[in-house]
Amino acid sequence: MTRHRSTKPNESCLSLRRVAIDTYRENVAYLHRDCERYRAEGFQALSKVKISTDGHSILAVLNVVDDNRLVTPQELGLSEQAYAQLGLETGTLVLVDHAEPPASMDAIRRKIGGERLSYEDFSAIAQDIAHNRYSKMEMAAFLVASGQTGLDRDEVLHLTRAMTNTGSRLDWHEPLVVDKHCIGGIPGNRTSMLVVPIVAAHGMLIPKTSSRAITSPAGTADTMEVLAEVELTTEKMHHIIRHERACISWGGTAHLAPVDDVLISVERPLGIDSAGQMIASILSKKLAAGSTHLLIDIPVGPHAKVRHMREAMALRKLFEFVGDRLNLHLEVIITDGRQPIGRGIGPVLEARDVMQVLNNDPNAPDDLRQKALRLAGRVLEFDPDIRGGQGYTIARDILESGRALAKMNAIIEAQGRRETPVALGSLHHDVLADADGFVIEIDNLHIAKIARLAGAPMDKGAGVDLLVKLGDQVSLGSPLYRIHAEFRADFEFAIAAIKEHGSGYRIGDSAHLPTAFVDN
Amino acid sequence: MTRHRSTKPNESCLSLRRVAIDTYRENVAYLHRDCERYRAEGFQALSKVKISTDGHSILAVLNVVDDNRLVTPQELGLSEQAYAQLGLETGTLVLVDHAEPPASMDAIRRKIGGERLSYEDFSAIAQDIAHNRYSKMEMAAFLVASGQTGLDRDEVLHLTRAMTNTGSRLDWHEPLVVDKHCIGGIPGNRTSMLVVPIVAAHGMLIPKTSSRAITSPAGTADTMEVLAEVELTTEKMHHIIRHERACISWGGTAHLAPVDDVLISVERPLGIDSAGQMIASILSKKLAAGSTHLLIDIPVGPHAKVRHMREAMALRKLFEFVGDRLNLHLEVIITDGRQPIGRGIGPVLEARDVMQVLNNDPNAPDDLRQKALRLAGRVLEFDPDIRGGQGYTIARDILESGRALAKMNAIIEAQGRRETPVALGSLHHDVLADADGFVIEIDNLHIAKIARLAGAPMDKGAGVDLLVKLGDQVSLGSPLYRIHAEFRADFEFAIAAIKEHGSGYRIGDSAHLPTAFVDN
Repeated sequence: MTRHRSTKPNESCLSLRRVAIDTYRENVAYLHRDCERYRAEGFQALSKVKISTDGHSILAVLNVVDDNRLVTPQELGLSEQAYAQLGLETGTLVLVDHAEPPASMDAIRRKIGGERLSYEDFSAIAQDIAHNRYSKMEMAAFLVASGQTGLDRDEVLHLTRAMTNTGSRLDWHEPLVVDKHCIGGIPGNRTSMLVVPIVAAHGMLIPKTSSRAITSPAGTADTMEVLAEVELTTEKMHHIIRHERACISWGGTAHLAPVDDVLISVERPLGIDSAGQMIASILSKKLAAGSTHLLIDIPVGPHAKVRHMREAMALRKLFEFVGDRLNLHLEVIITDGRQPIGRGIGPVLEARDVMQVLNNDPNAPDDLRQKALRLAGRVLEFDPDIRGGQGYTIARDILESGRALAKMNAIIEAQGRRETPVALGSLHHDVLADADGFVIEIDNLHIAKIARLAGAPMDKGAGVDLLVKLGDQVSLGSPLYRIHAEFRADFEFAIAAIKEHGSGYRIGDSAHLPTAFVDN
Repeated sequence: MTRHRSTKPNESCLSLRRVAIDTYRENVAYLHRDCERYRAEGFQALSKVKISTDGHSILAVLNVVDDNRLVTPQELGLSEQAYAQLGLETGTLVLVDHAEPPASMDAIRRKIGGERLSYEDFSAIAQDIAHNRYSKMEMAAFLVASGQTGLDRDEVLHLTRAMTNTGSRLDWHEPLVVDKHCIGGIPGNRTSMLVVPIVAAHGMLIPKTSSRAITSPAGTADTMEVLAEVELTTEKMHHIIRHERACISWGGTAHLAPVDDVLISVERPLGIDSAGQMIASILSKKLAAGSTHLLIDIPVGPHAKVRHMREAMALRKLFEFVGDRLNLHLEVIITDGRQPIGRGIGPVLEARDVMQVLNNDPNAPDDLRQKALRLAGRVLEFDPDIRGGQGYTIARDILESGRALAKMNAIIEAQGRRETPVALGSLHHDVLADADGFVIEIDNLHIAKIARLAGAPMDKGAGVDLLVKLGDQVSLGSPLYRIHAEFRADFEFAIAAIKEHGSGYRIGDSAHLPTAFVDN
């Protein structure tokens, strides 16, 4: 209906201009306030416009400009993503029209009204999001609407399938393509960098693309980057995977799960996280990456994402239900999430822990080693030739024999070993116990926040090094952990946070030590 | 915690710059991608920054710039609203920090989790919104969260009170300050322009500030503007109200209900509208404007906002509950919303209808006249000297005697009579009946959309003139309504919409005429 204006092009068209503003996963159009033809005021209240020429059109949020140097009244500016998406040259004449909200917003209004949505609804939503037709407020509406009354399990399946079908999908032409994924929330939990070399040393294909930290102090990609190049071309990544059976690189999956990336850009700043959205996000990404077998790690603890066993069990059933119907062989393992894993929190510190385990260093943090072996063992058991219950022993043999270290070194060389080692931040400060007793609580979230304030993950040498863990005995004034920072401002941020909100450690009677997996 | 950075100002500060972009009720900060100190990438994912100097700070959504002409790596740009809010000169050194989401987002996350919120929660949310601390996606989260599972009536009361207490409040120093308000959705429903002069002619104080249309083809302010100046200074408005007991002007209430204006900027584009939000929005604005007595009009019909009597009754109870507790004398009237009121839809056409009624023109649309008298009668009965049931007769006397017209003329003169009359759009087209029979359905929403496509309310002479209404007999090819437009492109838009989605009229057997207020 809005496609054909019969007026002459020079009457109704504006000249396209690229505006060098990155509006982060939201299309923005810049229209001059004096642009007569389109009378910006009327457009603005409804906030969305459609920009089109023959055969191309995009939707964008409207910003109004009062400066001819940005755009003139005869021009229509587009933010970088929008400009790239429209794919036309500067100076092309374009039409600007009122835009209706994307058609699938109707389904979201029905969801707000309490209806269940169908596969077709979720598919239309995923398509509209993939084509950047949603503004951030529309995405927020979708996330809250599907988080509040929740998605039932069929809806989670529909959403996962819709998100998977929106992107492209890798095919490795092998019957067994494994992966592992932790739902997150536990600092220092760098098991992927151990599971990948162990499993690959056994010969299994584990093409792991990892993420950088967004709200945590380090992602696997940030930590691997301490040792090796992680930003690889798709060609190089595939070459390494063919030769080493594995790689530990960053991203490269954007075109695989476009909807997930866009939704995360709204989910993270809002700090909302529903089970249904999380499952759809994880599984759609793994399916797109070509995984056939997947191990999911759900840590449980009083300061973890999942706080009670009953909640972990419900989540497990939901993962299994969706995985089974999407032909993904999926196993769930519920782990101890009462405290951080390993000692270091922050890229350099976590890389140190990982390399200690691979080197069979007697000082290596045992909890990281044990958890990695347990996970690797379960992944190995996806191999039909490995007998149930034998995985752990095989994983341990691979680690102790040095084969895991050799595989890790081969992966590092293939990705590109980092020439100069990254140093630990030169500023450091020990946080001390405020009483005699035992460590009976470590607040994962608060410790992660201190590490971030100290500069992690942007400053790789920044972070927190835990000197004692749950159950350890301490005395008044003995050190609990050491903060490392590179910049003084960050260093003082972190120390100020401790002064204001405490250390994140609780010292008390050993009888109050929480047991793992206790339900309340 | 983020207030004191110990580094030297020239190390950590950026130079403030105004960016002439109007981001419509959302603060946006522009940071250069090469700005080393603040490493844009880490900021961007969480999307929000805090900009501060001694004593001033604001929150803003972050956009990243790749063009030194917009901002240099040593500068921090702010969109117009943000720049005005920070209130500092270009070149001032400012700090940019990570920003936590506004504290009240925690209450919104609890609401998403199904909790009831307290007055303190709603008050914190209203304060944060009033201070522009919410991004649009955060506001969308709030609106959807409180729309989906709904607010219970205590929560609606808390929200209304919180929104009222956020702005300032007018005090007219009179015991009886009346107003009327329709919940909307019915085209042509221009009763305010009749109720105000009738009630003011009786001597009651009715200081009516009206809105411009956002999603409808005409607001009272747009229509009044055909006859008189509506953009008045606060001083002039108050002067007129003291002398005439009334005025019909636009806005002037922004500082009175700041939260409502901001929420509407998200509600409208999303097209979500919950009962609780609507009641809080209406009542907080009326309380802020100093009203003591309020008549609420709830139209019911198959194409109205409220479709069933039971829904109208529930809404009435909710209005009464909140009004009573906020010491507002509130009456609700449920009216016939089966079709547009009057004949004209669009500013010039609606002004014509209003003036015909005031002039006691025998051709005046009777439904508009009757509805206005019924509403005015109920408002007059707020006067303790008027006996229950006598209001209608008094209203009719005021209208028929010409006193309402005289009052309207006095108001127009006081506001500033429009010198040259605004003409009806010169392009016109008659939409014809596609069968013999009776008009048995008129789709309010579709007719409103056609009037908007034709150019209303921006082009005051554009709109739709209804030639027949429900129950009228038509024959194949006889005219149903006439479209008026000023611009050819808009004219063709409107005609194309009819070709694609129909006329909005249904012709059928008179037995199928819907009765008013039938529940299904």
